[in-house]
Amino acid sequence: MKNYLLLCGGVGGAKLALGFSKVLQPSNMTIVVNTGDDFEYLNLKICPDLDTVIYTLSGESDSSKGWGRADESWAMIKTLGDLGGDTWFQLGDKDLATHLLRTDLIKKGASLSFVSQELCKQFNVDHLILPMTDDLVETYVQTKNKLLSFQEYFVKLQCEPPVSNFVFKGLDNAKFNPLINLSSFNEIIICPSNPFVSINPIIQLSELNKFLRENSDRVSVISPIVKAKSLKGPTSKIMNELGLDVSVKTIASFYQEFAHTLFIDRADSHQRKDIESLGFKVFESDLIMNNLESKIALAKSIINYLEKN
Amino acid sequence: MKNYLLLCGGVGGAKLALGFSKVLQPSNMTIVVNTGDDFEYLNLKICPDLDTVIYTLSGESDSSKGWGRADESWAMIKTLGDLGGDTWFQLGDKDLATHLLRTDLIKKGASLSFVSQELCKQFNVDHLILPMTDDLVETYVQTKNKLLSFQEYFVKLQCEPPVSNFVFKGLDNAKFNPLINLSSFNEIIICPSNPFVSINPIIQLSELNKFLRENSDRVSVISPIVKAKSLKGPTSKIMNELGLDVSVKTIASFYQEFAHTLFIDRADSHQRKDIESLGFKVFESDLIMNNLESKIALAKSIINYLEKN
Repeated sequence: MKNYLLLCGGVGGAKLALGFSKVLQPSNMTIVVNTGDDFEYLNLKICPDLDTVIYTLSGESDSSKGWGRADESWAMIKTLGDLGGDTWFQLGDKDLATHLLRTDLIKKGASLSFVSQELCKQFNVDHLILPMTDDLVETYVQTKNKLLSFQEYFVKLQCEPPVSNFVFKGLDNAKFNPLINLSSFNEIIICPSNPFVSINPIIQLSELNKFLRENSDRVSVISPIVKAKSLKGPTSKIMNELGLDVSVKTIASFYQEFAHTLFIDRADSHQRKDIESLGFKVFESDLIMNNLESKIALAKSIINYLEKN
Repeated sequence: MKNYLLLCGGVGGAKLALGFSKVLQPSNMTIVVNTGDDFEYLNLKICPDLDTVIYTLSGESDSSKGWGRADESWAMIKTLGDLGGDTWFQLGDKDLATHLLRTDLIKKGASLSFVSQELCKQFNVDHLILPMTDDLVETYVQTKNKLLSFQEYFVKLQCEPPVSNFVFKGLDNAKFNPLINLSSFNEIIICPSNPFVSINPIIQLSELNKFLRENSDRVSVISPIVKAKSLKGPTSKIMNELGLDVSVKTIASFYQEFAHTLFIDRADSHQRKDIESLGFKVFESDLIMNNLESKIALAKSIINYLEKN
C-alpha cells in the first residue's frame, strides 16, 4: 500500500478525508489542513478547518450544517447576545470547549501541531491530522472597498461582496509543518476544497510548493467543480467574480504546475480531452458525496486507481 | 434619606444588598464589592463576588447554589472534561458569556469598573455596583505547607486545609475605586460577608482604610456570626483555625477601629454588654435571611435605625 498525504480545507475536504480514513490505516495516511482561515474571536483561537476535519473523522460533526458539533447547544452565544456582545460567529457550547482548551494550551506555549494531536487523541481519531504550519497565516479577501478577514467575508457577510483577490499575510515567513516528511509520501491528494482560499494557502508554503512542482507526477486533484457548479461553498461564485470559467478545465489550469492527475465527475466527461491536452491524466468517478457510502466509494476508487498507476 | 455605601463580598453580602436595593433608590446607595478572589481560569477573567452581586440584584442568580446563574446548563464544562481539560472550577454556559464578554472588554483596555457598569446595564440593575479597585489584588490563603490561591482553597479544596493567615498580593499599590467619593456617604454598611477574605481586602485599601478610621461613627457592621455559627461559608471554621472565639464579640473586636455600630441577631442578645464595652452601639434584629422578605425586612430595620441615629 502507498502512503497518502491529503491536503484539505474544511467541509468538502473533510468529506473525502472521512472516506479515506475508512479505507486507509493511520500508518498510510496523513491529513494536512489549511489554517489560513484561523482567527481570534472573543480572545479564543479558532481553527475552523482543523475542527471540521477532526469532528468529521471522529463522528462528532453536525453533518447537516457541515460545521460544529452534533447535538450542540447554544446557551453561551444566546446569552452573549442578550448581554449586547458580538455574536456573528456562532459558537456552540460543546464547540467552545475545544476553543478554550486549544487557546489555553497555546498560551501555555504548545504548538498548533501539538494541540491538533491532543484533540485527535481526545476525539479518538487515529489518523494524523496536522495544521499546514505552526506559524500564523491569515487569509484576507479583497473586495471593491475593503480588505476583509476571511471569516468576516465568509461568515459575517456570507460571501456576499464580490471578490477580486486574496491576500495571505504571513505566508512568506511561514514554515510548512516540520512534523511532515514530504518524501515519505507516494501520493499527494488535493481534496475537493476551495482552491483559492482552502488549498492555495497550503500549496503556496514554499517548501511544499517546491516539492509539488518537482514531484507533480505524484500529485492528484479531486475536482471541487462538477457540472459547472461547486460541490460546496462559494467556489463557483468566486470563480465567476475572478472572471474564470466555472469548469473542471479551469481547475486543471489552476493546478497545472502542481499536479498530473485530475479526478473529474462522469458528468464532466466531455471536458476530458481539453484537460488531457493540458498534460493531465484524467480519471472519471462519482464526485458527489451525499452520505458515508459515497465518501468511502470515492476514496476507494481514487486509491484503486492510484495503486495501479 | 441618607446615602449608603455597602461593602460586600459574595453570597452573604449579596443577600443583604438585594434587600437594600428593594428599599433604597439607586441615588441613595452604592455597592463596593471585593475583587480579591478574582482570578484567571482558562484565560478568562473571573470575578466571583461581582458576578454574585450582579446576578443576585438582577434576579438571575441561582439562589439554591448561591453562585452562578439560574436555569444554567453545563455543556461546555462537561465537554471540556471529556476532552481531558481542567474542570475543578465549574463554569455554566450562560455564566461563561459574562466571562467572555468581560475578558474581551478588559483586553480591549476597559477598566473593571467600566465592565461592571456595562454588566449592570445589560442585566437591568439600576443600583451602582463597583469593584473595590480597578487594580489587581490577589487573595492567598496560608496553609501549613502551601500558600494557596483563594479559589484553589475555596473551590478546589473546599476550604479543607486549616488556615493560619491570609496574604493580599498587590494590596499596597492598589487604589480604592476612583469613581467613589467617600465623603458623599452618610453611612457605610459592612455586609455580613466573611471578614477575613471578603471584607478585609476592601477595608485594607489605604484610602478607604484611612476614611473608615476617621469616620468610624458612620460605619455599621452586620454580623456574619449568629449563635456562634457563620451564616454562610467557612467564616466560623476559619475563626476556629485562627484561634478566635466564634462569637459576635470577636466580630466586634475585628472591626473595632473601623466601626461604631454592630447589628447582631436577637439570639446573641446576651453578648450585647460585652460588645458595648468595646465602644459599639448595638442594635438587635433578625439576621437570618432565608427569603426575599427577610432580606428586605433586615434592610428596612437597618435603614430605620440608621435614619434615626
